[in-house]
Amino acid sequence: MSDNRTPVVILVRPQMGENIGAAARAMLNFGLTEMRLVEPRDGWPNPKAVAMASGAAGKVLDHAKVYPTLASAMEGIEYAFATTARGRELSKPVFTPQTAMDKARALDGRCALIFGPERAGLENDDVARANAIVTVPVNPDFPSLNLAQAVLLMGYEWGRDTLPPEPAPHVRKAAAELLADRVEIEKLGDHYEEKLKESGFFFPETKAESMRLNLRNMWSRLTLTQGDVRILHGVLRQLTRR
Amino acid sequence: MSDNRTPVVILVRPQMGENIGAAARAMLNFGLTEMRLVEPRDGWPNPKAVAMASGAAGKVLDHAKVYPTLASAMEGIEYAFATTARGRELSKPVFTPQTAMDKARALDGRCALIFGPERAGLENDDVARANAIVTVPVNPDFPSLNLAQAVLLMGYEWGRDTLPPEPAPHVRKAAAELLADRVEIEKLGDHYEEKLKESGFFFPETKAESMRLNLRNMWSRLTLTQGDVRILHGVLRQLTRR
Repeated sequence: MSDNRTPVVILVRPQMGENIGAAARAMLNFGLTEMRLVEPRDGWPNPKAVAMASGAAGKVLDHAKVYPTLASAMEGIEYAFATTARGRELSKPVFTPQTAMDKARALDGRCALIFGPERAGLENDDVARANAIVTVPVNPDFPSLNLAQAVLLMGYEWGRDTLPPEPAPHVRKAAAELLADRVEIEKLGDHYEEKLKESGFFFPETKAESMRLNLRNMWSRLTLTQGDVRILHGVLRQLTRR
Repeated sequence: MSDNRTPVVILVRPQMGENIGAAARAMLNFGLTEMRLVEPRDGWPNPKAVAMASGAAGKVLDHAKVYPTLASAMEGIEYAFATTARGRELSKPVFTPQTAMDKARALDGRCALIFGPERAGLENDDVARANAIVTVPVNPDFPSLNLAQAVLLMGYEWGRDTLPPEPAPHVRKAAAELLADRVEIEKLGDHYEEKLKESGFFFPETKAESMRLNLRNMWSRLTLTQGDVRILHGVLRQLTRR
């Protein structure tokens, strides 16, 4: 089949068009683009789905294919995960979203993520057609994920390893963001110690030594950048200007 | 400081009541229960929020506290994550949701997850008050997470480790070694800003805003203990004494 191993999302008997649209958006957030629909309740295309998924997510809907049965919707799928709110007595492996997507990435072919209707979820008959079950670990006292949220979390787990994390702003480091070296920290300590001494900070004499030590300790423990050191010198100079 | 390390969710200037309600639901799905609101646009309580978060999630709203500023909403918070759609040029560490929640689990105190208004997200001034940034790795061509989805993903990462985290080596810390909370950091920033303003530090006027922001960023990025904060107040008082 396709070299493309990006999971296919199969919505089984989805009810509200809005939820189909929201699922399309959630998919695209994490780069999932192929949606298949099994017996959507209100037919297809569905204007409410389109209204919910405007722009780029609309294309996910445009390309969605409709199938009469879950079995037929499995074309080209090597491995299928049925998402259910809780494990079932079906002697199938049960994965978390994370372990499921780890498995998906290790497949040669494509996998499908199967989601049931909003109210009732997948029937046992549907689950029977899947290789494994995926269950999101939720608060047992409030396990109310909606369809788009379930899709979102699966997409997130798929994208977590495939989408590069946003390049951190501190990767591109200006001089100001480089960590100060120990000499610069030492000089900063000297500068403060000198000015504080002039201002009578180290008083009474019996405590002076430990006060000095506390200050030195603080400067060397903080993770100061070169920019921070510059700021702290500037602060001191300004405060002690005549 | 509470023993409870479950993250606090802070919504800054949220607009639609429905979204506040949906965020409460998303929180509770993963066992997050403490919501704080900064200047909710339509006041508080908000009937639309309540309508969206019925049942158990309604209790999250019942207990939500409202604050006039982000700074004041930081009470009792040791470490704050600002969620933003993309990294900013603010030389703060940038985490994925996963690494952020790993860090949250390793803290002694509580952390906050800060979310901005629906349309515009957090302002630089808000981000400056956080220790770090969290960015969800999304499809760069379709990065349209809504508020409740962003909350959901952070909650998911918090809840994902259903196993109790490795117990942190328990050291009884002297007060001086406890990390300062965000309110203490905020007051330190205020104190310096005030005295530096008096001394003419923020000059020229065109650069004043970015100088202020740099300072705020520095204070919130440094891992200051309560002892450090005391020292830094003392230093300033001494230097500005007549």
